[in-house]
Amino acid sequence: MKIAVIGAGAMGSIYGGHLSLHNDVTLIDTNPKVIETVQQNGLKIEENEQENIYRPAAAISSEGMEPVDLIILFVKALYSKAALSGNRNLIGSDTYVMTLQNGSGHEDILGEFVPQDHIIIGTTEDNGAVLGFGHIRHGGVGNTNVGMLTEDKENFLNRLKESFDSCGFNVRIHPNIQQLIWDKLFTNVSLSAVTAVLQVNIGYIAANEYAWKMTMALLHEAVETAHALGLEADEEKLAEKIKATSAGSPEGVTSICADIRAGRKTEVDTISGSVVRAAHKAGIPVPVHEFVVNTIHALEGRDRG
Amino acid sequence: MKIAVIGAGAMGSIYGGHLSLHNDVTLIDTNPKVIETVQQNGLKIEENEQENIYRPAAAISSEGMEPVDLIILFVKALYSKAALSGNRNLIGSDTYVMTLQNGSGHEDILGEFVPQDHIIIGTTEDNGAVLGFGHIRHGGVGNTNVGMLTEDKENFLNRLKESFDSCGFNVRIHPNIQQLIWDKLFTNVSLSAVTAVLQVNIGYIAANEYAWKMTMALLHEAVETAHALGLEADEEKLAEKIKATSAGSPEGVTSICADIRAGRKTEVDTISGSVVRAAHKAGIPVPVHEFVVNTIHALEGRDRG
Repeated sequence: MKIAVIGAGAMGSIYGGHLSLHNDVTLIDTNPKVIETVQQNGLKIEENEQENIYRPAAAISSEGMEPVDLIILFVKALYSKAALSGNRNLIGSDTYVMTLQNGSGHEDILGEFVPQDHIIIGTTEDNGAVLGFGHIRHGGVGNTNVGMLTEDKENFLNRLKESFDSCGFNVRIHPNIQQLIWDKLFTNVSLSAVTAVLQVNIGYIAANEYAWKMTMALLHEAVETAHALGLEADEEKLAEKIKATSAGSPEGVTSICADIRAGRKTEVDTISGSVVRAAHKAGIPVPVHEFVVNTIHALEGRDRG
Repeated sequence: MKIAVIGAGAMGSIYGGHLSLHNDVTLIDTNPKVIETVQQNGLKIEENEQENIYRPAAAISSEGMEPVDLIILFVKALYSKAALSGNRNLIGSDTYVMTLQNGSGHEDILGEFVPQDHIIIGTTEDNGAVLGFGHIRHGGVGNTNVGMLTEDKENFLNRLKESFDSCGFNVRIHPNIQQLIWDKLFTNVSLSAVTAVLQVNIGYIAANEYAWKMTMALLHEAVETAHALGLEADEEKLAEKIKATSAGSPEGVTSICADIRAGRKTEVDTISGSVVRAAHKAGIPVPVHEFVVNTIHALEGRDRG
């Protein structure tokens, strides 16, 4: 397959690198230092206690390129629209666009560029970290869960699975992918959002009764919204899972909390914000989510001095 | 009048000191250093560019005292119940209890000790600061607004006004004192609460669009609650007033924000929490206030290290 991976962070590099084993892959990133390093030395990925070098093509833009079979979007979700706008020449009438980004509702932005039946959404259980320019650590390995919101008329997902699995991934095709995305979302919009608001580690959620009440207020609104979308959500079981996550990783720092701490913009609009948009469409009131989205944006804007 | 002032902070000292000019006043505080200083050297109040010495009686408890005509409660509202429980012997069948504490709904706690027609609630426009043991700065001077929630059968408020005014206060008796208390409350439950949550100065409320949206969400719930209580509240005018307060004092720090910053317990339960209780009684949903009360308590509990 002819594949463009937009965004050469940890996850973009892991997918772009591995997929280049049996596909024609171009890694696109706006950071020239990353691109130059990959062009000159390849992409160095530490995994399974060894260092592997992968050699995808790399470019700072898609200028001059032809449409591809598949675009995989691995930029921070707040840059998705800009990334697709800037690389429109990759999109032909047969091009699929895939996102494994955190949060939900990415199909709304992708839908501005390709028809709904050419959008693939999902989650990844792999994780990794950037060690340097073109240098990545591939941490945990798991399933790549994918699905579509319409019928898969061209049987594209099977083709994708074959291609990905031959490069070392483990793709699972889900008929109800939104359920899977929301299963992951519940923790992000409650536990992650509250750790960001309070600027505390993950353990504080289970340890402090008021932090726990905040978390449960957000979970409740998210569950109501999921039910309105026709998804399954057992509030009690989800609460237990969140408590276990908090207690099991007390010193852990959520990425949204780390972003605030470092004075960076967060992905709150595609995490908690995606619940607000889904709820508005479904006519469900989510005042606490609206408040939390504003709180996190207000924290982003604070003077760090 | 025989008066006991419980709580010898800045405001308790200002009222206790001045009222001792023409009344039999005892200042009660659990801090022995404050009490010893007042007993030995009197109460030193800096006001009108001079130092005045007042000589109320002072005691660490009311042990052995007879019931008084009037108890004025000037402890932090979270200690109101403990303060009245610990000084029950001051309360006779004719005793009035008065609170000028921040927030609303104090009558619920006072009502556990005296009947509703012996409760005086209100606000003070005077302000001050503690400079040392028994040493106070009396800053701004204004009206002491008082009222009752029932008919004033014994005409006690006129007697109180005469007594207070002769000692330098300017008492105004209000037939609808709840309105006045809520007029003050709207700013406290919105602007003050948000500055505490975000740990920012007052100016940030008008300067940051997201902080402003947070403030307006809280104001809206408080206005809905006030309407349910039969009070007047013009949301648009209140928003303008809050914006002017924020813009007019950009470097100002609200007391609830300062308490969080210093790792102290806040008065949020009698400020935002009083809106929650009033709303619950009236059947008005206030999910954002509930979330904010929990947020501020969760911030109080954070490790400061």
